[in-house]
This record gives sequence, structure tokens and C-alpha cells, in this order.
Amino acid sequence: MTANPHTLPATPEVLISEVGPRDGLQSVKAVMPTDHKLRWITALYEAGLREIEVASFVPAKLLPQMADAAEVVRHALTLPGLTVMALVPNLRGAEAALAAGVHKLTLPVSASAAHSLANVRKTREEMIEEVRAVAALRRDTAPQVMVEVGISTAFGCTLQGEVAEDDVMRIAAQCINAGADEVGLSDTTGYANPAQVKRLFRRLRVEIGAHAGAAHMHNTRGLGLANCLAAYEEGVRTFDASLGGLGGCPYAPGASGNVVTEDLAFMFEAMGVATGLDLGKLMAAREPLRAGLPGEPIYGMTPEAGLPKGFMQKNVVQKGAHV
Amino acid sequence: MTANPHTLPATPEVLISEVGPRDGLQSVKAVMPTDHKLRWITALYEAGLREIEVASFVPAKLLPQMADAAEVVRHALTLPGLTVMALVPNLRGAEAALAAGVHKLTLPVSASAAHSLANVRKTREEMIEEVRAVAALRRDTAPQVMVEVGISTAFGCTLQGEVAEDDVMRIAAQCINAGADEVGLSDTTGYANPAQVKRLFRRLRVEIGAHAGAAHMHNTRGLGLANCLAAYEEGVRTFDASLGGLGGCPYAPGASGNVVTEDLAFMFEAMGVATGLDLGKLMAAREPLRAGLPGEPIYGMTPEAGLPKGFMQKNVVQKGAHV
Repeated sequence: MTANPHTLPATPEVLISEVGPRDGLQSVKAVMPTDHKLRWITALYEAGLREIEVASFVPAKLLPQMADAAEVVRHALTLPGLTVMALVPNLRGAEAALAAGVHKLTLPVSASAAHSLANVRKTREEMIEEVRAVAALRRDTAPQVMVEVGISTAFGCTLQGEVAEDDVMRIAAQCINAGADEVGLSDTTGYANPAQVKRLFRRLRVEIGAHAGAAHMHNTRGLGLANCLAAYEEGVRTFDASLGGLGGCPYAPGASGNVVTEDLAFMFEAMGVATGLDLGKLMAAREPLRAGLPGEPIYGMTPEAGLPKGFMQKNVVQKGAHV
Repeated sequence: MTANPHTLPATPEVLISEVGPRDGLQSVKAVMPTDHKLRWITALYEAGLREIEVASFVPAKLLPQMADAAEVVRHALTLPGLTVMALVPNLRGAEAALAAGVHKLTLPVSASAAHSLANVRKTREEMIEEVRAVAALRRDTAPQVMVEVGISTAFGCTLQGEVAEDDVMRIAAQCINAGADEVGLSDTTGYANPAQVKRLFRRLRVEIGAHAGAAHMHNTRGLGLANCLAAYEEGVRTFDASLGGLGGCPYAPGASGNVVTEDLAFMFEAMGVATGLDLGKLMAAREPLRAGLPGEPIYGMTPEAGLPKGFMQKNVVQKGAHV
């Protein structure tokens, strides 16, 4: 089940969903060459990541970084047990992603009216209709595929400021009614605080029950991990993160910095919460990222400081190691 | 009560204790000139900070950065309502600090045997005897002064690795028995995780009741705010932090990065937890720090990103402002 016979990660108690190859790569100007992407995705997989957002199916003229989406998906599909996920902004993107064979689609629906227009040039209501169309296409052509919605700017918006919590809940319910399987909440702008995170995820579960999805937090104001901890305490078990903290949103001015996968994984493992990841291999996966994006700044406090002296991943059985 | 008549911070629900002028300044090689220190401390005070660790009373040949401790204390004593705090490693330091007129003494007692020898050249047992001597001196000469102990390396040590929780609890109890008023826990090395923070502070309260003191967290592995959140949820209400994240411990290799005051204050204020601080003035207090330590890197995600659009400090009444 694992790539390396020497380690046996325990059954994960949380799912860290890696968004770097999509969210990260589309937010930097440089284009990572395809062969580097494939190498990086393999390294992420070998570190134990079992859900990776590998690409975004959008016109290449808008996002040249994602022009090789189909080829990237094809490679990712060869990795056993990996959930291959792609972002699609609309029905056309979903058609291409399904044709490529992805396991899971994710659509961004903004809670902020202003961000919706800036990000996808559609109103929020139009985006819910896209969700409906994509869910119908999935039902008719690929019923095994999951459809997820991530509600962007759920915790506030750099364009319009405050976002009404009622708007977030209404949109979440509408997306589920439109046929989505899961709705997660995204702090696109790094505005969230732990009290708000708890409140919104609690309301989300009341609103859509088991359809409540991932926490997608940014570290823009340093609160990324505190917000993930708050979400975890509220019962969230899926967390988006990006290796090296790559990412942001080009259409939300000032937004930057996905939660760093390495730091998030360290936090959970140190707490004794199994992630299924091998921290050493996760650090090693920074190398193909660096190689594919020379000169691009990558982040992470735990990689820079190193693991604590004598730190043992309680949830990784070191086969043959002297424990 | 506040320096600026236009703002009225609400009664604080948490006390952020600023350690930058001591912990921060003694960890950098450059010596901040005295007049800059005084200006910086005034700016911290004007931002609403009401407990500041202003200096450390140690031989000037060991820490030339602290040679002006008495003069710095004299200035800080002119700021009404400020608790003026100094670190003292031993009885001799306490004598000097009491002569200077401080309101509160803090002694570092290591939970790690190795760190104790490296940091203060004394065993842990010898340090507890120092606490006893300092507490006796206080009782006989300045009974109004508070004596606090911060247990260094309470969450792990870069020299010896794991630190037994039982050691931490035993030392905490011994310090209270020796006459200290409060014992806090310090993550000197940035090893702590939120689960451990909750567990240790819970045990600390069982062990020493209302004598349980501050959480002193570092951000070495990015978990600083998550650990403060965990401590807050466990009932801790006093948090050490350092403006610009200045600080670390010169005798704990690899340790760096106190929790950033600005980020911590933003987290609490965003959660609706009153800090008594004015975030705008707190950001402004970075300028005298920068001016006094030219070229020294200073940190903080919230200062770099800015406050969220439309962010209002719920706990500051803007007198005469159009709200």
C-alpha cells in the first residue's frame, strides 16, 4: 500500500489534500515544465499524499501554467490509490477533466459577489448553475466521480470586505441541492480567525450535514495552522495544503500563502494525529518543486528548523528500525 | 487611562506580556542604544501593552545588550499603569533589579538538565535554591514585588530531546514551594504542539492551581499561534510575545522566533477576545524597533499583509470616529 516498504503509515485520521500542483503552480508566473510536474507529483505521492489537486482545466491562454492538464492527469492516474482531483471553473472544463479521467472535480464558488465576478466572470448564481450542469454531466457520464465545491472568500474578501455568514450557508445549501457531493470552506484571503472557523464549520454541518467538506486555509496573517486546529477541533478531517506554501489567488489582491503542507503535517503528527504521511519524504518532495521552479520562493518553518531532536512519528512504524 | 484620548480599549480578557526589550534584544548581536530602547518601550506602552519585560539584570560582560538595565527600568517606571518586569538569573540580579525598582521579577528555571547548565551554568536544583533566595529577599525587602518563574524547555530541548512532563510538574511545584507567585511554561525551542500544550497547562493547574502562569511560545516550526490558541482554550490568559518576533535563546541551538506580538494580538482581536491593544499603534511600534536595530530582520505576517479590509477592532471604541 505504501511506496516504501520500510515505513507503514498508520490509517490516517486526517486527510491532507495537496493543492500545490494546481493552486500553487497557477499562482506563480513561471511555468513548471511537464516532466518536472510529473516528478513532483510522484514525490508527493511517495510521501503518502493520497489526494492531490493536480491541475486546473481552463483555457491555456488564461493559465498557460495549466496547459498540460490532461497529460498531468494521465500520469497521476498511474499512481495506485491516489485520488486525482482537478479544478474546473465551468461545464467545459468539467468535460475536459472527465475526458482525462479524473476521480474528483472541484469547483470554486465565491461567497463574495465581487470576488465571483473577478475570479470566474460569473455571478454567484451563475456559478451555482454551473455546479448543477457539472453535477448532471457527472451523473450521466461518470457517476463514480465526486463533485466538490470550495466556497471561496468564505471568511472575508479583499474586494468587498466582510462576507455575510448567511450568504456562505445559503450558497453551500444551493450547491448541495444542485448536485455537489461536498462543500468546503476556503479562506482565499487569509482573513479567517479560529473563532470564526469554528462557527462557520459548525453552521455548515447543521446546514448540509455529512456533505460538509474540507478546510482550505491560508497563512496570509500567520493564522493558518491555528485555523486548521480550530477546524479540526470542530470535527473537520480534510485539510487543503500546499507544499512549500506555494499559492494564493491571482484575483484576490493581497491574498497569498496556502497553509504549508509540511508544517500542517508536523502539527498533526506531533499531536499524535495520524496523517498517513512520512515527514522525511514530505521534506524531500521540496526538491523536485525547487528544481521545477528555480528561483521561486518556497516557504515552511518546519523544513527550515528541522524536526525536533529525537522526534519520532508515532504513526509510522519503522520496519526494521531500532525503536 | 489610555495614552490616546481617541481610543478606549475594552477591559482586556487576555494579557499580552511583551518580552521584546529583554528576550528580543538579548538575542541579537547588535546593541540597541538606550535612547532608542526608551522610545521603543514608550511606543509599546502607547499601543496598550501593560506588562513589559524591559531588561535582564546580568553581568554586562555576558550580555552587553542589557548593560543599561537600570536606566531602562527607571524610564519604564514613569509610564502609569505599566507592570515593569525584569529577568534575573540569580540573587545578585534580583538585588540589582529590586534596587532599580521593578514591579515583577522573572527567573528562568530549565526543565531540561542539559539546558539548565548551558543557560545559567547551574543545575535545576541549584536554580530552585536561587528562586528560594530571591523570594526571601523579596519578602524581606520588597513584598509588593511579584516573583514569576518561566520553565524553559518545558516542551522539549534541543540538547537533550524529550523532556519528561513529570519533571516539568515537579519543578513547577518546587518553585511555588520555594516562594514564587507564578510559574509559566516556555517553549524555548519551538518543539510544542497544541495537544501537548493543553495537556501540560491542564496538569500545571492541577499541580499549582491559580499559581499557573503565562504561556511563552515560539514560532520556530510555525505552530506558535496554534499553541497559544490551545493554551487559551485550556484557560491560560497571559501570553508572552515579542514585537516583530524578535528573540530566541542563545543557549538553545536552533531556537528562534518568539511568537509575534502583532500576529497574536490580531488573532485574539479577530476572535473578539479583547487584548487592550490598539493594533494600529502596535504596528507603528515596529518603527522605533527598526530604527534602533537597523538591518536586523523583523517578522510578522499581519504587519506585512495589513489588516483585513474593513477590519474593526470590536474592542476599541473609536471616539468620534464615523462607525
